Amino acid sequence: MALLVQKYGGTSVASIERIKQVAAKVAAAKRAGKDVVVVVSAMAGETNRLIALAQEISKLPDEREKDVLIATGEQVTVALLSLALKEIGQPARSYLGHQVRIETDNAYGKACILSIDSTKIVEALKTGEVVVIAGFQGVDENDNITTLGRGGSDTSAVALAAFLNADACEIYSDVEGVFTTDPRICPDARKLAKVSYDEMIELASTGAKVLEIRSVEFAKKFAVPVHVRSTFTELEGTWLVEEDDSMSDVLVSGVACDKNEAKITLLRVPDRPGLAAQLFGPIADAHIVVDMIIQNASEDGTTDMTFTVPKADHQKALAIVERALPAVHAKGIKVDTEIAKISVVGVGMRTHAGVAAKMFEVLAREQINIQMISTSEIKISVVIAAQHADQAVRALHDAFIR
Amino acid sequence: MALLVQKYGGTSVASIERIKQVAAKVAAAKRAGKDVVVVVSAMAGETNRLIALAQEISKLPDEREKDVLIATGEQVTVALLSLALKEIGQPARSYLGHQVRIETDNAYGKACILSIDSTKIVEALKTGEVVVIAGFQGVDENDNITTLGRGGSDTSAVALAAFLNADACEIYSDVEGVFTTDPRICPDARKLAKVSYDEMIELASTGAKVLEIRSVEFAKKFAVPVHVRSTFTELEGTWLVEEDDSMSDVLVSGVACDKNEAKITLLRVPDRPGLAAQLFGPIADAHIVVDMIIQNASEDGTTDMTFTVPKADHQKALAIVERALPAVHAKGIKVDTEIAKISVVGVGMRTHAGVAAKMFEVLAREQINIQMISTSEIKISVVIAAQHADQAVRALHDAFIR
Repeated sequence: MALLVQKYGGTSVASIERIKQVAAKVAAAKRAGKDVVVVVSAMAGETNRLIALAQEISKLPDEREKDVLIATGEQVTVALLSLALKEIGQPARSYLGHQVRIETDNAYGKACILSIDSTKIVEALKTGEVVVIAGFQGVDENDNITTLGRGGSDTSAVALAAFLNADACEIYSDVEGVFTTDPRICPDARKLAKVSYDEMIELASTGAKVLEIRSVEFAKKFAVPVHVRSTFTELEGTWLVEEDDSMSDVLVSGVACDKNEAKITLLRVPDRPGLAAQLFGPIADAHIVVDMIIQNASEDGTTDMTFTVPKADHQKALAIVERALPAVHAKGIKVDTEIAKISVVGVGMRTHAGVAAKMFEVLAREQINIQMISTSEIKISVVIAAQHADQAVRALHDAFIR
Repeated sequence: MALLVQKYGGTSVASIERIKQVAAKVAAAKRAGKDVVVVVSAMAGETNRLIALAQEISKLPDEREKDVLIATGEQVTVALLSLALKEIGQPARSYLGHQVRIETDNAYGKACILSIDSTKIVEALKTGEVVVIAGFQGVDENDNITTLGRGGSDTSAVALAAFLNADACEIYSDVEGVFTTDPRICPDARKLAKVSYDEMIELASTGAKVLEIRSVEFAKKFAVPVHVRSTFTELEGTWLVEEDDSMSDVLVSGVACDKNEAKITLLRVPDRPGLAAQLFGPIADAHIVVDMIIQNASEDGTTDMTFTVPKADHQKALAIVERALPAVHAKGIKVDTEIAKISVVGVGMRTHAGVAAKMFEVLAREQINIQMISTSEIKISVVIAAQHADQAVRALHDAFIR
């Protein structure tokens, strides 16, 4: 029997009414002859409510206890959805991270899934039950509760689809699929029927917040067909698939915008070996993901070093940099949280030249200053002032996609 | 080092402010040289909020999923209290039922604790941490989440004190101790300095809702000294201890009132062997605790059979009785939820006669009709109409204790 993993996000389970609607959708898939494993997030707003409670007690809450706290959000949803399924006559059973041993490392708040024990899930499916699994959470090897970070339920779903060898993983949310750019910024944006894993990774990492990036990496690694679609329509969404020939005809698949990064610059660092390691070692140890790093050579033996980190982590990163400051002999630090990273993404770039040049030309015509540039095989990203972000997205979408 | 188990009920952790107060109390005990294990309930109102969510979906929610749902209440509290302890410099660590393997049977909603693995707790205490454990919850042998029923956190605390061989178990709540009767009903009620486990069991089972009855049975079985006291004062409360000689001088220690039972009567049941088993077997299988059972012999070969069950279970019990009706050939069923059970309790009764006679005399003088009578070595209970309950309590307290 075909096995489907379905994931419903916070807005899809935001109320009892919506949970009942999700139950109806799940039961319909089961009636259509599929085995169904459902992964759910916390009810919209619940995680923030819990974090607010923690912050009434502590500005920087202990991460182990914070995970214990916020993991309750998904626990509530799995119980309610299982109840809703049973209420309409569909046998169901909930499982938490520790019950199906979604084992992770112990990076609280941003843990990575290492393994899943599918025994109980497979047994329950055999008896005709729908299995409802708490997303976002796991346990480390010592049974401490861990969470996977924002959007972690996507990763839970794709990881489950991989470990269970599911036929497809459907990611339901309030968006209809992956768009060429954010439709709220650019009215010409259109939905893509399919997109390659690599393009999706670049789009996700550059701010097209349809899917959490690690979930896409998981999907690529295990070749899980992922279908991103809306809870509230029956329309087909966007399929994430392996790259095929037809895709390289399209130069640029999407224009992404990420306003969630902050930029930290170390001024006039002596230009000698080992400094970068001294700086980025401790930042990595604190599980802060550094995105772009730029270092300019200079005449006088010193250099400015600039890097970006998630805005949410920038104060933690700053504290680490300040501690390292005497050792790296920097003359000062500058922080800028008012930036945006704009990226054009497309597997077609591999075989076509001139995309970067065209991108810079478009931005120049719009009089937008480029602060940083970074490229990969299928992506070109620039950092600009946040205030110009929407204008840049519209101009680039117009130039490359329309 | 002396080991103290402290349990804080829902009203003691009803808000972030109160959780901070509890943290201060716990840290003070630690500073005073004690090792401290804290057991907490859900924040007041939280369990009811969660049950209301379940009931929006299902009138009779599946019990496994209901336990998954309501177990989140305590999980939130342990995380918040651990955060509050750390915030004031007291190292702390939370554990959930599954993490310290509070193993129970699988009677969802009213599970019994079978064993606790103290390894992690002892390790954490050795490092100077306060250990904060979620009350009310456990796991069965298959790692399904179970809960112990209302007041179950008391049982969690006493069971932990027993398994950890603690020097005392302090039960903190908004009551100052065990009283001779409910002070809201009878202004003459006074606090008892100590009470025997057996008396407390009778008082608890008859409605003095200071402590959950199974917690007292646990305490008696393992001779755990339990100190029932208020979170909001420094006053000594009431000690639960083994019976000593001084206690038998007191004829009646307390007058208890229980309005949480309902009475079910089967009319004109044929008076032949095996009928009681046919009836009460299925009720026990449904984990419904039958309290009093009365059967009157009669002239015509039939009998009326009356029994009481918790009000919350009476519809479930009724459904079972109705299914059994054809088999037991009863002529009808009567249900009365407007009853109260009034009990006088005292170890002194063992060696003194006449308590029952005096009790009936007092109630006769008050013109209160007795519907059912049940006695034990140290207790006499009567069922009367709920409307006369307070009057009966005052009259009996006046006659026996004042």
